Amino acid sequence: SGNFFLLAGPCAIEGEEIAMRIAERIVEITNKLEIPFIFKGSYRKANRSRLDSFSGIGDEKALKILKKVSDTFGVPTVTDIHSAEEAAMAAAYVDVLQIPAFLCRQTDLLVAAAKTGKFVNIKKGQFLSAESMKFAVDKVREMGNDQVILTDRGNMFGYQDMIVDYRGIPTMQKNNCPVVLDITHSLQQPNQTSGVTGGRPDLIETVAKAGIAVGVDGIFIETHPDPANAKSDGANMLHLDHLEDLLTKLVAIRKVINQF
Amino acid sequence: SGNFFLLAGPCAIEGEEIAMRIAERIVEITNKLEIPFIFKGSYRKANRSRLDSFSGIGDEKALKILKKVSDTFGVPTVTDIHSAEEAAMAAAYVDVLQIPAFLCRQTDLLVAAAKTGKFVNIKKGQFLSAESMKFAVDKVREMGNDQVILTDRGNMFGYQDMIVDYRGIPTMQKNNCPVVLDITHSLQQPNQTSGVTGGRPDLIETVAKAGIAVGVDGIFIETHPDPANAKSDGANMLHLDHLEDLLTKLVAIRKVINQF
Amino acid sequence: SGNFFLLAGPCAIEGEEIAMRIAERIVEITNKLEIPFIFKGSYRKANRSRLDSFSGIGDEKALKILKKVSDTFGVPTVTDIHSAEEAAMAAAYVDVLQIPAFLCRQTDLLVAAAKTGKFVNIKKGQFLSAESMKFAVDKVREMGNDQVILTDRGNMFGYQDMIVDYRGIPTMQKNNCPVVLDITHSLQQPNQTSGVTGGRPDLIETVAKAGIAVGVDGIFIETHPDPANAKSDGANMLHLDHLEDLLTKLVAIRKVINQF
Amino acid sequence: SGNFFLLAGPCAIEGEEIAMRIAERIVEITNKLEIPFIFKGSYRKANRSRLDSFSGIGDEKALKILKKVSDTFGVPTVTDIHSAEEAAMAAAYVDVLQIPAFLCRQTDLLVAAAKTGKFVNIKKGQFLSAESMKFAVDKVREMGNDQVILTDRGNMFGYQDMIVDYRGIPTMQKNNCPVVLDITHSLQQPNQTSGVTGGRPDLIETVAKAGIAVGVDGIFIETHPDPANAKSDGANMLHLDHLEDLLTKLVAIRKVINQF
Repeated sequence: SGNFFLLAGPCAIEGEEIAMRIAERIVEITNKLEIPFIFKGSYRKANRSRLDSFSGIGDEKALKILKKVSDTFGVPTVTDIHSAEEAAMAAAYVDVLQIPAFLCRQTDLLVAAAKTGKFVNIKKGQFLSAESMKFAVDKVREMGNDQVILTDRGNMFGYQDMIVDYRGIPTMQKNNCPVVLDITHSLQQPNQTSGVTGGRPDLIETVAKAGIAVGVDGIFIETHPDPANAKSDGANMLHLDHLEDLLTKLVAIRKVINQF
Repeated sequence: SGNFFLLAGPCAIEGEEIAMRIAERIVEITNKLEIPFIFKGSYRKANRSRLDSFSGIGDEKALKILKKVSDTFGVPTVTDIHSAEEAAMAAAYVDVLQIPAFLCRQTDLLVAAAKTGKFVNIKKGQFLSAESMKFAVDKVREMGNDQVILTDRGNMFGYQDMIVDYRGIPTMQKNNCPVVLDITHSLQQPNQTSGVTGGRPDLIETVAKAGIAVGVDGIFIETHPDPANAKSDGANMLHLDHLEDLLTKLVAIRKVINQF
Repeated sequence: SGNFFLLAGPCAIEGEEIAMRIAERIVEITNKLEIPFIFKGSYRKANRSRLDSFSGIGDEKALKILKKVSDTFGVPTVTDIHSAEEAAMAAAYVDVLQIPAFLCRQTDLLVAAAKTGKFVNIKKGQFLSAESMKFAVDKVREMGNDQVILTDRGNMFGYQDMIVDYRGIPTMQKNNCPVVLDITHSLQQPNQTSGVTGGRPDLIETVAKAGIAVGVDGIFIETHPDPANAKSDGANMLHLDHLEDLLTKLVAIRKVINQF
Repeated sequence: SGNFFLLAGPCAIEGEEIAMRIAERIVEITNKLEIPFIFKGSYRKANRSRLDSFSGIGDEKALKILKKVSDTFGVPTVTDIHSAEEAAMAAAYVDVLQIPAFLCRQTDLLVAAAKTGKFVNIKKGQFLSAESMKFAVDKVREMGNDQVILTDRGNMFGYQDMIVDYRGIPTMQKNNCPVVLDITHSLQQPNQTSGVTGGRPDLIETVAKAGIAVGVDGIFIETHPDPANAKSDGANMLHLDHLEDLLTKLVAIRKVINQF
């Protein structure tokens, strides 16, 4: 359809009922708007600031929920992995393995993900240039896997703020792979004294529109029916009720961009 | 027309013939595309890195050329001033006084510009937050002049690079004044060892599209029929031959944005 | 004596009695510690965030106080100027003309300061690299004035924070001119929502010790007997009662550095 | 002795002969200068930019060399680990487990390192504030291991540069653990287009002196008898022949600091 694709879902898999409910609603919206959809959910949160933060409901339990979403709604799924050992395990359940931004330089992890033959979505480190992501892409391709996606999630700007550098989108597209903009994490306000990352959810639409205008291939967005009570990243998740309105606008901009 | 407005012209007024030629072409394009147009030209370059850089053809000579452009084509003009003493002088010839980014905190300059009764276009310092620009706006308004425009021209990112922070656009619009994105200077690469600022003109379209998508009220762009031989800022100016294509795309995006 | 020199005083000249009192105390300390001392005071604050901030007691009145300090205690003085017109006026009263960081690229200002024949102390813009300061030095020297001093006052790090980049000290010293570290302004926290710059005075000693250790030629520090009630920059000024202790430590470090 | 301690050695363990030679020389120098010394060597390089970069001579082989250095010279050793699985393996051979900066938020890794009962040296991520490192310290301490060290290795400043923020040293010391400054990696110039990190070895002395002056507890420095031909990080390693001169100066500064 010439449309952008969407990676969306809750931050973490908190339970089957809520995962299914979120998936169902996104499927409904993306079907209507003809947006290719990949359901996203983390089965484990491995890099929280604080030890007492929520880290998951159990790996296998969460991965099975991802599989059920996929089977029920006929959509692919994506989840993030944190060590080489997790690659094969997660690959048994999902379609896209995501490499967290902090870990995008870890060769063992990239190689293990590549070897599963699944799509590998590499998030650009908040400290890396768009140009330097070609070395990460190479690590996957040299394993014989050409199914690479790159995702931008903003750049550190001082200690407690992030800025999206939209110049990085065309730069990363030079690697001949789809480039995604992660709206949710680009709006994080890290290094808060509380040990809980803050956010600027009022700016979701601003950041997303600019991304579509510069030609991103996909949008990544975390959404939840009750962000304030989500188990992680509540500060930035889009309320599920606002997703259709946002995507409708983005599709409209995309249609114009497609004409150029 | 609901369209954005355009501040455009060469960086500096290099001579009458070339100024008139550039103005004529932009008038032609902007009439066709129904874009309100303000002709831009500096009569003096006061903050060049190097003493041997081009600094102007003479203040009065350049200001008279701006006046001639205005009279001939029936368009308003904008130029930048660098000291309180220049405000009244420039105001005799142009419609909009522009405060350079480095000088946006100089109270005397803002007050003098405000007192002319002309529009005052304040460029956001590369080192200032969008939020803090409200104090600059106040300095103009408290002189009884409500004709304020704010312009973003990027933020320092390390010593030799700049990033546009699009979150700043809606933030500055909260001051109830038009907000412009300066495409040309947002792409500068300052602090080059040569003492000549570099640029990334290949990214003009990327930066501009994102600006329109997030809802800027105006676009600032320097353009020249021969950027490589322009007297200043050649590294970033758009070739005049490419202006129509760029603006055509921006108008198309704007039309979609206007529907929301 | 091989010692570093000191530029110190209140931020602004608030009145004669307090200026004399501060000067007397610093003279006492610097005589004891054999530190060459230059008394600092601004006669006008031209770049405050807010229009309602204190901007001075009157130019001539303040300049005469600087002259009286100089005559009474036999110490040179330094003050900052903001436009070419101010250069000759201030030069009639003080020994060193200081160019504010925001204005360090303004050619007219540098040239006017250079032509007075006085020492010119150029503050490095928070957005400029140490390397690029050689162009500012050139602007002064090409007027036939070789009495240039460079001062580092930190670099923007995000919108609301600054970091001193100590690598810049030896870099600027390559211009064969003294390099000063401005402790007070390096600890600013700009762009606060209140429009009043914040600070981190608890880190004064940390920033200063590192400066001496890397070999700065001079230290700039604002000090006041009652920082909380100072008319400007209260957030960062050192209490006058703590100056001797700080300088004693710095002299001790300097003595070791001098042995290398 | 009130002296700072030193973590030093080559970047990677390239072979037994060279490791022993480097260790022998550092032991000689540090004995003379009374500096507590911990020999450093990586047994695997897991986060190189490029897949074709040197990644090690084999884990066990390299770890045995570290053990031999320890047994021969009677010095403790430190090496970095990259996954929870590596913690117990490395702990069988070395005294300090080091957590790489990119991985300092990985809870599983910190917990696994803590559980070995060894010292855990956590490098502050280039994207993290000094304040936020308390959460990393907590993750180790809550496992019952109080032997934590924090190491600063600079902060991202733009894409291709880093700055040491010395304010972070006293901030991290508030956690009541020793704080080390990593001179070598603080001078990296990341994101180079070649995929090989650059450096500024001419500034080693500048960065180190400032660190000692602000009171770091330890210094981390990579050194090699032939940096140009080292297998990794050659751009920043100190030539072994220059180590004694550097440490002699640092010890002299430390002695003054100890008097305050």
